[in-house]
Amino acid sequence: MRTIIECVPNVSEGRDRNSIDAMAAAVREAPGARLLDVSSDSAHHRSVLTFVGDAAAVRAGVLALFRAALPRIDLRTHRGEHPRMGAVDVVPFIPVRGVTVEECVALSKEIGAAIASEFGVPVFLYEDSASAEHRRNLADVRKGQFEGFAEKMKDARWAPDFGPAAPHPSAGVVAVGARPFLIAYNINLGTRDLAIADRIAKAIRHISGGFRYVKAMGVELADRGLVQVSINMTNFRKTPLHRVFDCVRAEAERHGVPVVGSEIVGLSPADALYAAAEHYLRLEGFSAEQVLETKLLGE
Amino acid sequence: MRTIIECVPNVSEGRDRNSIDAMAAAVREAPGARLLDVSSDSAHHRSVLTFVGDAAAVRAGVLALFRAALPRIDLRTHRGEHPRMGAVDVVPFIPVRGVTVEECVALSKEIGAAIASEFGVPVFLYEDSASAEHRRNLADVRKGQFEGFAEKMKDARWAPDFGPAAPHPSAGVVAVGARPFLIAYNINLGTRDLAIADRIAKAIRHISGGFRYVKAMGVELADRGLVQVSINMTNFRKTPLHRVFDCVRAEAERHGVPVVGSEIVGLSPADALYAAAEHYLRLEGFSAEQVLETKLLGE
Repeated sequence: MRTIIECVPNVSEGRDRNSIDAMAAAVREAPGARLLDVSSDSAHHRSVLTFVGDAAAVRAGVLALFRAALPRIDLRTHRGEHPRMGAVDVVPFIPVRGVTVEECVALSKEIGAAIASEFGVPVFLYEDSASAEHRRNLADVRKGQFEGFAEKMKDARWAPDFGPAAPHPSAGVVAVGARPFLIAYNINLGTRDLAIADRIAKAIRHISGGFRYVKAMGVELADRGLVQVSINMTNFRKTPLHRVFDCVRAEAERHGVPVVGSEIVGLSPADALYAAAEHYLRLEGFSAEQVLETKLLGE
Repeated sequence: MRTIIECVPNVSEGRDRNSIDAMAAAVREAPGARLLDVSSDSAHHRSVLTFVGDAAAVRAGVLALFRAALPRIDLRTHRGEHPRMGAVDVVPFIPVRGVTVEECVALSKEIGAAIASEFGVPVFLYEDSASAEHRRNLADVRKGQFEGFAEKMKDARWAPDFGPAAPHPSAGVVAVGARPFLIAYNINLGTRDLAIADRIAKAIRHISGGFRYVKAMGVELADRGLVQVSINMTNFRKTPLHRVFDCVRAEAERHGVPVVGSEIVGLSPADALYAAAEHYLRLEGFSAEQVLETKLLGE
C-alpha cells in the first residue's frame, strides 16, 4: 500500500447492533479498504468508523457505507445527544503516507460528486475542501441540524457543493472534506498549580499567539498530583511534536517546573515519531524508506 | 504480518545473472516471503539476499533457496575474494517485530535440522544459536574455508550441529543462526581532528570500556572537512541510538567540538526510531500499536 488515506466517517446510528455491523461489514468488504476501528456511542446515537486504503479503496468504502446506511437510518426519527445533519453525517479524508492534503481535497470532491449522483444526498465540502471560508468549520456547516436544513439551504450561502437543492428526506445532507491528521498530545508538568498549565497552554496555542497548528488548554490530573497541557496538534507536519515539547519545557522551566512526561492519545502516523527522532538525533538524509516496516508497507 | 523476521542468506554466486535470478525467484515465490533486496558482488563472487516473513515464510524461503542454489553452485570450482565455506554460506535470522531473539534461535535450529535432512549439508549453528562459545563467531566457524572443512570436521570441537560428519561434495557446509538487527549509525563531528573521533569511538565501544553493544571507530570525511564516529549498533534494544548519541555529544563537548549530524546507513527497524522519539519526548505508555502504519502491518 504505497498510499495510505485514513477515512473516518461518522454515522447517525449508535444503538442498533445489526445496523452498525452491516455498515462495518460494507466497509470491510470494499476492495482494498482496511477497517481499523468502529466506536459506537449509545447516548450520542452515533458511530465512528475508521478505515484506511488508497484512493480507490477509500472511494469504494465510502460508497459502500452509504449503500448500507441509507436504508437503515432515518433521521426523521433519530434522537441523540450529538448534533447531526445526515445519516452519514461527516466523511473526512486524512493523508497518512504517500499522499498530500491537496490530493485528498481532489479525492473528497470526486467522492462528494459520486455521493450526490448515486444517492441524491446534498454534499457540503468542508475543512480544506471548503468552497468558501464560511463553510470550512464543521460546526458552522452543521448548524441548524437535520431539522433546520430545508430552511438553511434556501440561503444561497448554503447551497450544496453537489446534489439537490433540498435535503434527502430521510438521510439529510453530508459534510465531506480533507484535513490533516490530528494528533492528541498531552504534556504533564510536575506541579499541582493549574495556573501554570493554563499559562503554558496560552503560550503555545495559535489563538493567543502560539504555534499555527496547536490548540491547547490546561487540565488537572488530580489523581497523579500533576497538571497537564492538553494539546490538539492539527498539523504535525507543519508544527511538529518536538518543537511544541521543547517550547513547553522551556516555558515550564521559567516557572521552575519539570516536564515529567508526555503522551500520544490514540493513533499517530509514523512520520510524527520519525520527525522527533530525526530532530533530536540530528539525522542527515533520513528517509522513511529506510525503516524496514515502512518499506514493507510500500512494496 | 504480526511477526517480522529478517533473513539475509549469503550465497557463493555473484557473477552468473541467470543463477542469481533463479535463486531470487525461488525466495520470492516462497509462500509469505517478501524479497526486499539482492546485492551481488562479482569480485567477491557472492550475493546477499534480504527477505522477510513470519517463521513459516522464512523457513519456506530458506529451503527454496537451497533447492535453487545446490544444482547451480559448485564450490570445487568457485574462486572469489570473499571467504566462503558453503554454496549457501551463511543464513542469519534477525527479529524485527513481534518475535524475540530466543524465538529466532529456536527457528534457526528447526530450519538447520531441515537443511541437513533434506540436502545432506552439515549445519553449524553460530551467533546466538551457537552450541558452544568457540562456535559463536562466524569468522571462527568459517576458518579453513570450503577446502579445509573435511579436515576441520575431524576435530570433535567442529562436529556439525546437524547433518553428516563430512562436507557436502559441492555445497560444503552452512552456518545458520540468530542475531539481533545490526544498525550502521554514524555521528559527524565539526572538526578535522581525527584523533578526537578516535578518542570518542574508544570511549563508546564495548571493547575499550564503552557500551555493551557498540563497535566504533574514527573515520575522516575529507570532502566535508569533518570526522566521523562510525558505529555498528549490534543490539539497538539494549544499547539504544539515543544513549550513544547523547554520550558522543557529551564527549565531543568536552573537546569543544559540535555534533553536526548523524546518519543511519541502510535499513533500521521502526522500533529504533520510536525509542528515540519516546526518550526525547519523555513519552509515557507509548506502544508501537499506536502508530497507524505499524498497526496496519500487524493486522
